[in-house]
Amino acid sequence: MEQSSRIPSARDKLLFTPGPLTTSLTVKQAMLRDAGSWHYEFNAVVKSVREQLLALAGFAPGAGWETILLQGSGTFGVEAVLATIVPATGRLLVLVNGAYGERIVQMAQYLKIAQTVLRTPEDTQPELPAVERALASDASITHVVCVHCETTTGILNPITEIGRIVKKHRRTYIVDAMSSFAAVPIDFAAAGIDYLISSANKCIEGVPGFSFIFCRRADLMATEGSARSLSLDLLAQLKGFDKNGQFRYTPPTHVILAFDQALRELEQEGGVIARAARYRRNHEVLVDGMTQLGFRLYLDSKVQSYIITGFRYPADPKFSFEEFYRRVSEKGFIIYPGKLTQVNTFRIGTIGRVFESDFRSLLAAIREALDEMGVKIPVR
Amino acid sequence: MEQSSRIPSARDKLLFTPGPLTTSLTVKQAMLRDAGSWHYEFNAVVKSVREQLLALAGFAPGAGWETILLQGSGTFGVEAVLATIVPATGRLLVLVNGAYGERIVQMAQYLKIAQTVLRTPEDTQPELPAVERALASDASITHVVCVHCETTTGILNPITEIGRIVKKHRRTYIVDAMSSFAAVPIDFAAAGIDYLISSANKCIEGVPGFSFIFCRRADLMATEGSARSLSLDLLAQLKGFDKNGQFRYTPPTHVILAFDQALRELEQEGGVIARAARYRRNHEVLVDGMTQLGFRLYLDSKVQSYIITGFRYPADPKFSFEEFYRRVSEKGFIIYPGKLTQVNTFRIGTIGRVFESDFRSLLAAIREALDEMGVKIPVR
Repeated sequence: MEQSSRIPSARDKLLFTPGPLTTSLTVKQAMLRDAGSWHYEFNAVVKSVREQLLALAGFAPGAGWETILLQGSGTFGVEAVLATIVPATGRLLVLVNGAYGERIVQMAQYLKIAQTVLRTPEDTQPELPAVERALASDASITHVVCVHCETTTGILNPITEIGRIVKKHRRTYIVDAMSSFAAVPIDFAAAGIDYLISSANKCIEGVPGFSFIFCRRADLMATEGSARSLSLDLLAQLKGFDKNGQFRYTPPTHVILAFDQALRELEQEGGVIARAARYRRNHEVLVDGMTQLGFRLYLDSKVQSYIITGFRYPADPKFSFEEFYRRVSEKGFIIYPGKLTQVNTFRIGTIGRVFESDFRSLLAAIREALDEMGVKIPVR
Repeated sequence: MEQSSRIPSARDKLLFTPGPLTTSLTVKQAMLRDAGSWHYEFNAVVKSVREQLLALAGFAPGAGWETILLQGSGTFGVEAVLATIVPATGRLLVLVNGAYGERIVQMAQYLKIAQTVLRTPEDTQPELPAVERALASDASITHVVCVHCETTTGILNPITEIGRIVKKHRRTYIVDAMSSFAAVPIDFAAAGIDYLISSANKCIEGVPGFSFIFCRRADLMATEGSARSLSLDLLAQLKGFDKNGQFRYTPPTHVILAFDQALRELEQEGGVIARAARYRRNHEVLVDGMTQLGFRLYLDSKVQSYIITGFRYPADPKFSFEEFYRRVSEKGFIIYPGKLTQVNTFRIGTIGRVFESDFRSLLAAIREALDEMGVKIPVR
């Protein structure tokens, strides 16, 4: 291993982040193959991956739903949906309570899509009456988009309640479920979801390199002619799969082989229910331990997901996040900086190939780092 | 290995294609790591990869040139250049003699960039007098783009001669060097290249998942405000690297670790000169052997690259490409279908971790497949 990478470590540091995540060795070993991206054997893997994803989302074959894989990160997937399906005359309602919502606002600006933005503070879910008012008062709004788990803070947004309002007003509903899909059960029908985006390196525990989008075939077909980018044209991507089972342009073949293996390991673990239980347990162990150390959560527990958790910096002036991060890293654990503008926080993810025991080790490392720095936190 | 992938093979089939390619085991083993995409250790790898690429292109540090890595396939990289640098008032001159040139025409249509297209037949290089006339007669043309090695046929286009004309007329010159960079020496200054695009899974022999773009920092900075897509905004991508050494959005971390290793192996082999010599030798062995079997090359040898070679279908009605492809594949060798509209051809790539001896094995397999099919080719 040493010779294969400039990262000096006999054993990889564990990642406690919203992705890329720690993955199993067997998932990574699936990448020790070179596959032809247009070859029938590889096409069979792509077909199987798409079928497994549909099953995971709860769709029977022939139910009219599709999964489309797209090269690039999750952001490419979200932008591809907007760039493909919103017509020139459309208007987007964007619900924002964090950096990923703001990113969607930015995308719409680039794509010159008219938009209305409803912002709530980073620790607050979207306000349902405001969504209702926006849709009731503005018939020009054609699409509504929100982020399921805003990893900026770890807040979980009420996609089903929002979806009911969107569907009452017959608008198209897009959900960015990047960090929640396959870990937080999602009922597409109950939430009225039309388009949902997630990515390979989140709760399915693959490695990064592509995103995937769920939608009804007929809905996507009806958007013909709106796409603003060749690479990000989701409809053309689907037609490519239809035509010959291939990606239109070179896919990250190794990443897809790893994902196929990751899907198998998700099934072996017991599917979304078992994975959700493991992540929830990770989160409980983390929150209990951090609370005992005196750390305070950024969010109210009512809106806190078990995906990623934000903690406020301790008040002790001896605390420097940079030093804390580096010390914890040197002990073999990588945590995640905060992304908030108003409050100083850092974040710890509870997804990926990490278990309760890893959190106990992490907590011990955090305690040691604080001791070394001489940081004292009053425990309430 | 068996359990890690649905592709049933004790040993991978060799890929004789324009990418994804056969890579070394050590390149693939570099992916057996999980790295944090924002972590300082991974940032150091990204920095090193960018520096190595600049050196490979012949640029000294501080010479004002940059390499920008972008998630997705090579197509994403080409579209990112167009989507970022051509202003709304710009006009593109596209030189087309194959599918990749046509793809650029398509991109410009999506991006609503005005364009003039100069087409030559697929076996013919762009006509220099036509380029001269187009630029002399139309002052509205701001950018010229051409493909270096058009893998549709394997034709090598005269980028230096074209570039001299482009520079005489002071236009911006973009070269798609996807399948040639690092195998065909390129003199940026002599050719007057302003932007050059290539990809991870070509002659550097990495695995697919990102493209890279060379440009002058000052040139790219001057394009501020033109970008048509957030994900494909090359300038914002550069600013992201400037700010904290990170990708703006999750990169394919494993693919980048593999690429870092691939760069090291390129250096160990003796750099571009040694690699070019190996590929040239591969090409010679292939062409000699195929000619002896009676196959005819599609291109005139004067314009034929040593990257990929197109062969005409034999006239014998017993020849079916689908059967031939499958038989050769079953013997462990994957060749590449043709992409021409007018003439039936198939292609054999000579790049990737493949050697003279592999071509001798491939030729034996091709001979066997023809015998099994009862195909006879008259040798001239």
